Amino acid sequence: MTDLYELTMAASYRRLGMRDRATMSLYVRTLPQHRSFLVAAGIDRALERLEHLGFDAAGVDYLVSTGHLRREDAEGLARTRFTGDVRVVREGSVVFPDEPLLEIDAPIIEAQLAETLVLNAVHYSTLVASKAARCVAAARGRPVVEFGLRRAPGIEAGLEAARACFIAGFASTSNVHAGRALGIPVSGTVAHAFIEAMPDERTAFEAWALTSAGPITLLVDTYDTLNGVRRAAELGRHLERHDQKLHSIRLDSGDLDALSRVARRVLDDAGLTHVQIFASGGLDEHAIDQLVRGGAPIDGFGVGTRIGMSADAPVLDMVYKIVEYAGRPCLKLSAKKATLVGPKQVWRRRGIDGRFVEDRLAALDEPSPGNEWRPLLEPVVRGGRRLVRRSMEDARRFHAEQIALLPPELRAVEVDATYPVGLSPALRARHEAAVREARVREGLADV
Amino acid sequence: MTDLYELTMAASYRRLGMRDRATMSLYVRTLPQHRSFLVAAGIDRALERLEHLGFDAAGVDYLVSTGHLRREDAEGLARTRFTGDVRVVREGSVVFPDEPLLEIDAPIIEAQLAETLVLNAVHYSTLVASKAARCVAAARGRPVVEFGLRRAPGIEAGLEAARACFIAGFASTSNVHAGRALGIPVSGTVAHAFIEAMPDERTAFEAWALTSAGPITLLVDTYDTLNGVRRAAELGRHLERHDQKLHSIRLDSGDLDALSRVARRVLDDAGLTHVQIFASGGLDEHAIDQLVRGGAPIDGFGVGTRIGMSADAPVLDMVYKIVEYAGRPCLKLSAKKATLVGPKQVWRRRGIDGRFVEDRLAALDEPSPGNEWRPLLEPVVRGGRRLVRRSMEDARRFHAEQIALLPPELRAVEVDATYPVGLSPALRARHEAAVREARVREGLADV
Repeated sequence: MTDLYELTMAASYRRLGMRDRATMSLYVRTLPQHRSFLVAAGIDRALERLEHLGFDAAGVDYLVSTGHLRREDAEGLARTRFTGDVRVVREGSVVFPDEPLLEIDAPIIEAQLAETLVLNAVHYSTLVASKAARCVAAARGRPVVEFGLRRAPGIEAGLEAARACFIAGFASTSNVHAGRALGIPVSGTVAHAFIEAMPDERTAFEAWALTSAGPITLLVDTYDTLNGVRRAAELGRHLERHDQKLHSIRLDSGDLDALSRVARRVLDDAGLTHVQIFASGGLDEHAIDQLVRGGAPIDGFGVGTRIGMSADAPVLDMVYKIVEYAGRPCLKLSAKKATLVGPKQVWRRRGIDGRFVEDRLAALDEPSPGNEWRPLLEPVVRGGRRLVRRSMEDARRFHAEQIALLPPELRAVEVDATYPVGLSPALRARHEAAVREARVREGLADV
Repeated sequence: MTDLYELTMAASYRRLGMRDRATMSLYVRTLPQHRSFLVAAGIDRALERLEHLGFDAAGVDYLVSTGHLRREDAEGLARTRFTGDVRVVREGSVVFPDEPLLEIDAPIIEAQLAETLVLNAVHYSTLVASKAARCVAAARGRPVVEFGLRRAPGIEAGLEAARACFIAGFASTSNVHAGRALGIPVSGTVAHAFIEAMPDERTAFEAWALTSAGPITLLVDTYDTLNGVRRAAELGRHLERHDQKLHSIRLDSGDLDALSRVARRVLDDAGLTHVQIFASGGLDEHAIDQLVRGGAPIDGFGVGTRIGMSADAPVLDMVYKIVEYAGRPCLKLSAKKATLVGPKQVWRRRGIDGRFVEDRLAALDEPSPGNEWRPLLEPVVRGGRRLVRRSMEDARRFHAEQIALLPPELRAVEVDATYPVGLSPALRARHEAAVREARVREGLADV
């Protein structure tokens, strides 16, 4: 489950007798549009995958059959286990471009074989968590429910998306697998199919109220939303008379702002002030922000497809780059793709009120810049052994704390602020020295 | 592995004694930007999932623990197996909005439980295959290689994306798992990490040429592309003198058009006219089209991240809708989300030259519109049993035939043509009658 070239490069390192340690750094080069920060997620999955490096005899046979690997090399790689060290930011952390989310220090073969597995785990989850945090911010305290599984890119992705959203503050998921496997609260309403399968809408509402085991939500937009709301209100009053309660109605199409106002009035006029209005239908943080800022009386939001594919920013420029081999700095000089050399620490300065003020990238061996600064990366694997395991609930709590300390202008859905991330003088000097050395070595003109 | 509400609705159908058959139809409502057709994929996975409907006792316990299902209902649903009929378009088919890719006719509980599983399988694969076909068209015969795994939304998605791309005409994948599990040819080059880990670029090139078991590709843009190309040409000449061959160079950054022209000249001047130039680095069909139309001497393209997330159109408005229950037409009247009633067939008319001329949606029980028309949907499951199994290779061949018959203006990367899809008069009449009936029944004004 990796890219062929990780294996062929590892085979070459083997043939060349390269056993020294390499440091590889995983980070995002630039923010995509509509993002002013990222939320680190998928780190735990990446660590799990490192614990299971290696492959079986049938894998060896397959690789040899491709003509790209010699048997001896394939057998050597199959036996490779991860024996290196890993430092990561905590899941749920707010991070910025150039800041490593994960650094691996290991014999180069292991560090190389880890690339695809680690990037694949962290990219998607970070992408989704970063968007999810924006949805939560836009909803300003109203619950947001994830129901993207149907159009998620697979069952596995649906699970990871539910996890990323929960870390970022979503209230629940429709994904039963995520509920069972990860303990995320599950919730659900009812679909149009149920309404349409019944002789008419009124019968459908009554049938649902009669048979539903959970809180009763009525979907009111199958035929005509206003009609649907009136019928829901009638049924709501009827239920009250029988000591039952209508929990909520769901709007899934049309002008949600206008419809929610009319629906609220109809429900209130029927004495059903406790009945909530839930909105869904192609929503994302932009739509939620507009509805909430406009004062639409909506009590909760469902977000589906647009979160599962992070539709407004479907790709992060996330890379996993070698920064040191055998104690020697490594770097690329390509236009726009330059790498900062060496193992790093990210330091974050907090103001007197605890708020994040600025970050600084420094070489790992530099001392703390001072009392107000805290390091973001912590060792979690040493010599191939996990030192720390943190729960999803812990990541969710940690994320909530982090978000509260973010400068408020960075939490705005309409992005117009940049958080300051600097370089330590020592890291800058080392990097510039390495660039000069590489240019001289490769016979390039001075810059 | 489904949405909670599929289970709670199914439980309600059960309690209500609804055992009649429903027809559910999976289709895309509208094309996203940058698409003039879709390529159906993921159908086989959807059918596999139907064969494994149902869940275990621990699943029952979990569901009961959520408070959303009663034990008796959960137990009943756990035992549910798929006993229905399924008609699908062949994988690799070119399809258009409103055309069903898959229709299920089954007892309503089964048809409902299938929803999330089926949509989840078909959405992502169709999304990726539709973009992949455009990359292949843009490359105009030059091979396109998929290497999106590192930023694909999971391991499963990486596999499905490799499959979808191969069906759509990609030459190979970097994904070893896809190679082993599905038999897709694998290929790979070398990464910057390998170059950077060596003392200098010249040493790196020599080391790679010495140890690589497959065809030798040199990555030339780590430090300075022009320098890199010159060094690759020197090594290429050296290899020739020792009866070896440099296969290709890879450009991964910068102005690929300009750099490929310079590189071609340097290689040709060194007598290395057979050495190919392979380009990668954030490519998609738009970039490939521009390079090929401009005449850049590039022999093959690598497409990664932007295909795995279908970056320019990350979501299809794909739905799975009830269209009939117990012989009664079902439909939704919501603004912009209306459903066409009843089970359907899609008929495609071909011109004298075999080219696709127009499609027509018709009710399933209508006769063929004539000799020039061919049906797209074929029965593949009857009474829960698979009637037909087709291979991925078959889908790839079928797709290639289909694409060749598509009106050429539809294959253009810059979308400016719409393929005509009509309704049969009978389907239109039935649909309009059902709309009228529903409006009267629900007490709505005439339209």
